[in-house]
Amino acid sequence: MRNQVTIAQIAEAGGVSPATVSKVLNGRHDVSAATRARVQALILEHDYRRRPSAAPAAPPIVDLVFDELESPWAVEIVRGAVAAAQEAGLSTALTSLSEAQERHAWFDHITSRGTRGVILLLSRLSKRQKAELRSRRLPFVVVDPRGQPDPDVPTVGATNWAGGLSATRHLIELGHQRIGVIGGRPNLLCSRARMDGYRSAMEAAGLVVDPELVRWGDFHVDGGFKQASALLELAQPPTAIFCGSDLHALGALEAARLHHLRVPADLSLVGFDDLPLSRWTSPPLTTVRQPLAEMAATAVRLVLAREQDDQQPSPSVELATSLVVRESTAPPGH
Amino acid sequence: MRNQVTIAQIAEAGGVSPATVSKVLNGRHDVSAATRARVQALILEHDYRRRPSAAPAAPPIVDLVFDELESPWAVEIVRGAVAAAQEAGLSTALTSLSEAQERHAWFDHITSRGTRGVILLLSRLSKRQKAELRSRRLPFVVVDPRGQPDPDVPTVGATNWAGGLSATRHLIELGHQRIGVIGGRPNLLCSRARMDGYRSAMEAAGLVVDPELVRWGDFHVDGGFKQASALLELAQPPTAIFCGSDLHALGALEAARLHHLRVPADLSLVGFDDLPLSRWTSPPLTTVRQPLAEMAATAVRLVLAREQDDQQPSPSVELATSLVVRESTAPPGH
Repeated sequence: MRNQVTIAQIAEAGGVSPATVSKVLNGRHDVSAATRARVQALILEHDYRRRPSAAPAAPPIVDLVFDELESPWAVEIVRGAVAAAQEAGLSTALTSLSEAQERHAWFDHITSRGTRGVILLLSRLSKRQKAELRSRRLPFVVVDPRGQPDPDVPTVGATNWAGGLSATRHLIELGHQRIGVIGGRPNLLCSRARMDGYRSAMEAAGLVVDPELVRWGDFHVDGGFKQASALLELAQPPTAIFCGSDLHALGALEAARLHHLRVPADLSLVGFDDLPLSRWTSPPLTTVRQPLAEMAATAVRLVLAREQDDQQPSPSVELATSLVVRESTAPPGH
Repeated sequence: MRNQVTIAQIAEAGGVSPATVSKVLNGRHDVSAATRARVQALILEHDYRRRPSAAPAAPPIVDLVFDELESPWAVEIVRGAVAAAQEAGLSTALTSLSEAQERHAWFDHITSRGTRGVILLLSRLSKRQKAELRSRRLPFVVVDPRGQPDPDVPTVGATNWAGGLSATRHLIELGHQRIGVIGGRPNLLCSRARMDGYRSAMEAAGLVVDPELVRWGDFHVDGGFKQASALLELAQPPTAIFCGSDLHALGALEAARLHHLRVPADLSLVGFDDLPLSRWTSPPLTTVRQPLAEMAATAVRLVLAREQDDQQPSPSVELATSLVVRESTAPPGH
């Protein structure tokens, strides 16, 4: 029942031709950057939306856009998105920005062929990207395993604080008191949330957190290796480490091997993510499961729901994490 | 310059209406299975092809169809295909047959929205699937890390025999003589090729292959664990194992741990595939690199070339494997 603004009105307000407005809406290249920005701003300001009859039929496709496809999360997320899309009778198209010739060309490509919605796996969504997505009326949702929610943007994440808490509580229940921790980069909210879960579990158990035992890595194997090596070389090394990510735990396994320590007899390790490979490490890894496939499936369903009604507020969904106990944890000196 | 057969002629030959022939060409559902099969046979027999003007414009999409997306190969293959498709200005759409409600629905879905070609990652391409692909004139290529080439079908694989040879030769050069081997399932050609590479390297070095040391697994972690455990429990266990796949090697690492053997000091291990996780095992894995991303990229380029000229014979390409020496191999008793 809104009073719809027309392309002609946008064109008049912007001092351009209606054809130019159409070009911007369709993601065409033959519009100058300045004109494009002006028209995009007007589209948003006037809340222009195409009448259903005027919009070209969207092909049965949802888009999944990655910063880079190398992440060990990628396959789980792809799997969850493909399953949810197929359930809705849609194909899933993949874009990797690291492979793109020009980082913004994908907007044009996706807009010109049409899409039902975009699931983004980006370390950061820039202002320009947000403006592009909104002005082209592409419904989008960010899957955010790093837990960097942007209040402005619909996201699907996981309960990182609760995961850090349950990992640490598990080690305490086994009898560990000197428990090290390797967070991800401290500027990531999910690193902070996992670390705070660790601190809360320690405090709730009446254990003092020795600052020497608190380390920051990078969520990758190298960071885990480096920080675990430093922890194992302390005068009083920990008997257990909450590693903050499965890749950190892989690095810690290698550090333990080089220090001639057996896992879990001499050192207990807990990861975070439950990547498929955590079942296959030696020993198999106790870890906190982040339901990556379910997060991606939820994002697909959200984006399709937003297509129906894009007036709903941006949801920020957190799915539950859960502890998976395998063989890398045991009582100290076991 | 061919004498083109028309839809009307196909219809007459089949005793059906031209509309029915069109429906079969377009993958519509409202044709009985028997009629569809008859019309498909006629389309192939008469070598019917649409005139370019009659064909609907194909959207800028190539399709990647997996049996299941869980395979640890999947992410490498997706990455390679997405990169090659983006280079050609195309999106990559993913389908997982294990998620499909009805295993044949994807043909209809892909045909009705259009595609530039299909890259298949199937353990086996059935006669029915081949007939569907051909009668709908969908260019397709099979990426075949299992090395099961079908003379009838264009495939991209890797040099499995040469890989088995170089893995075994590496162990011999380190001084090993009692070298075990764990092949994949013996009904897979690639398992046989890798095994034959092992035998050739042993024979060329004048080493006798003890039948006790030759095992068949399943390419998965469990099979590697089971067969490596059996090898380590022999009266005369091997000092090195060529594991036939990286997942076998992960299982063998766990078997070594449970037998209190250090890798590589007490036991050397070589994998096959060079999955990303082989860099992250403890110790990092010496393995034979199968260039999965390059294989997928080659398949995309082949399928686009076939779109230009589908009269060329089915190519069967094998990309080179190469030995990657990391830390899981050392001289015996090192």
